[in-house]
Amino acid sequence: MKFIILFGGASFEHEISIVSAITLKEKLIELDLSFIFCDQDHKFYLIDSSKMKATTFSKGEHKKMPQLSLNHGSFSQKSMFSSTEIKGTVINLIHGADGEDGTIAALLDFFSIRYIGPNVNASVFSYDKRYTKYLCKAKNIKTLNYEILSSKVHQNLTIPYPVIVKPASLGSSIGVSVVKEESELDYALDTAFEYDSNVLVEPFIEGVKEYNLAGYMADGKMNFSIVEEPQKEEFLDFEKKYMDFARSEQVLKADISEELVKKLKSNFEKVYRNLFEGALIRCDFFVINGDVYLNEINPIPGSMANYLFKDFKFSIVSLSNSLPHTKRAKVSYDYIHSIASAKGK
Amino acid sequence: MKFIILFGGASFEHEISIVSAITLKEKLIELDLSFIFCDQDHKFYLIDSSKMKATTFSKGEHKKMPQLSLNHGSFSQKSMFSSTEIKGTVINLIHGADGEDGTIAALLDFFSIRYIGPNVNASVFSYDKRYTKYLCKAKNIKTLNYEILSSKVHQNLTIPYPVIVKPASLGSSIGVSVVKEESELDYALDTAFEYDSNVLVEPFIEGVKEYNLAGYMADGKMNFSIVEEPQKEEFLDFEKKYMDFARSEQVLKADISEELVKKLKSNFEKVYRNLFEGALIRCDFFVINGDVYLNEINPIPGSMANYLFKDFKFSIVSLSNSLPHTKRAKVSYDYIHSIASAKGK
Repeated sequence: MKFIILFGGASFEHEISIVSAITLKEKLIELDLSFIFCDQDHKFYLIDSSKMKATTFSKGEHKKMPQLSLNHGSFSQKSMFSSTEIKGTVINLIHGADGEDGTIAALLDFFSIRYIGPNVNASVFSYDKRYTKYLCKAKNIKTLNYEILSSKVHQNLTIPYPVIVKPASLGSSIGVSVVKEESELDYALDTAFEYDSNVLVEPFIEGVKEYNLAGYMADGKMNFSIVEEPQKEEFLDFEKKYMDFARSEQVLKADISEELVKKLKSNFEKVYRNLFEGALIRCDFFVINGDVYLNEINPIPGSMANYLFKDFKFSIVSLSNSLPHTKRAKVSYDYIHSIASAKGK
Repeated sequence: MKFIILFGGASFEHEISIVSAITLKEKLIELDLSFIFCDQDHKFYLIDSSKMKATTFSKGEHKKMPQLSLNHGSFSQKSMFSSTEIKGTVINLIHGADGEDGTIAALLDFFSIRYIGPNVNASVFSYDKRYTKYLCKAKNIKTLNYEILSSKVHQNLTIPYPVIVKPASLGSSIGVSVVKEESELDYALDTAFEYDSNVLVEPFIEGVKEYNLAGYMADGKMNFSIVEEPQKEEFLDFEKKYMDFARSEQVLKADISEELVKKLKSNFEKVYRNLFEGALIRCDFFVINGDVYLNEINPIPGSMANYLFKDFKFSIVSLSNSLPHTKRAKVSYDYIHSIASAKGK
């Protein structure tokens, strides 16, 4: 079984995707792995395993490596007289734009390349936090109250301070601020609007209990990781999250009741089923007065949340063995034929 | 100003896309047009304008025409020693799968090709009728009650008969049935499930008033077509809709009050703003007791609903002049540099 780790992307999270890929290389070392890097100009390069170091990319050394193009069924390396195909199940490890917004999923679907990762629909509902709210409302999953600000409209918030301000469509805490009083709001909005033209405002709850759970579906059954209670200061900023994407040591499971674990899993499943099949995702929850609230869906979590799984390699292999089949519509020309023959043509 | 009409696709609506493209060729005859056909195997062909006839495709004659590949900024025709670029603003005219599900939008975004049509997010919210319901709920737009059936779950309907049964993600009335009593339900479900694994059931309201309105945004302002009251028998089946995609004669505007026109436009704008920018869409509404209900969003209406616009060519040109710019994230290697230098590498 061959796998291709696809990473990089024209995204603010480009660097953490590189870190994620390097981490995954170590975690999946016994598997047959290839590495494909998508640079900021949307060019693909085949990276030699021995060159999988952060400085390869920051120094631009990848440009000396073979460039690839997308073909039906594979990436391919073309030379003057021949073409080599790079085959395998893609692990989409491009965080943020490109990888999580549905672009890469659509590309791989169009070229009939199998992948582990969110499909186009799943990407749209998880990449933009507004649409995660729509999804939760429709599926009766609790979330915090929210307000959307669009760059041109300034208004008084209806949510009392302190609040948390987030660009609608970015992960990894980029552009996120906690705002304790009105005087700090403008600066926080300026920061967030640098990254997105829509900004989400939610109540900030000091000391709220937070739990992360990852999982995937294989053979029609949900498989869950352990529940983690993330260590946090007020919240993880980008630099801390950056280091977080390199995590590879298994963590201790949260000391919580079986009943709460059940509730978290049942909320996870509500999010996942009929939308995220084919992906390994992490859901981040809040627990307030015993009720579970969905905070965020990470459809491509940092280093695939490997540290939450007892046997991560097994998880990847079994997910890969039960990827959903996309049925492509069979095209017929029945109507054209019948009309053409009615016209005597 | 050059335009490329992109049509075909691996979709149940493949044939009507061909009809749509032929109609548009006539309507936009004074513009500089190229024609690119996407076949059911996702290969692109450059079609000579004189060959834009339905039988070209049903007889497979397109296979003798130049094959194109996607490049950054354009489609290109490659020969042994040179490469010709086909440039212009793409009019995405692939109805149904590929064109309306976000795939083509993602492809064109990835390769930085400008297009008229729904972006990935807009596609997801209009292609799948379940997600249109989510959108309307979040934006306080009225829709009919509904129930979702998934192929493996059979249950008693909570909606009283008669009902209308629709595959969740298909347009053009394909797989749609009106079910007057329970004994007819099984057959209708079998038909719908042939096309999709999720089926939407809604009340069927005999003789309900139906109005169609198309529009787009240019220079930050909404531009609306006339309101049409579609002629209908019980509902248009595929064969009738097929002919409908070839419409090119302007229709008469519905004889309704200014107040109702206003309400329809205001509902249209709620759907459109902050999601459909760059697309010319048609919304189909019901009016019940003076209230407006959204029935369906057609993000790529048949022959672009040209027959609803007084000056269709002007509409296409002005939309093309105000396509939204997608800002691509600037990639930096600041963190990798700082970490590498901290390590003394």
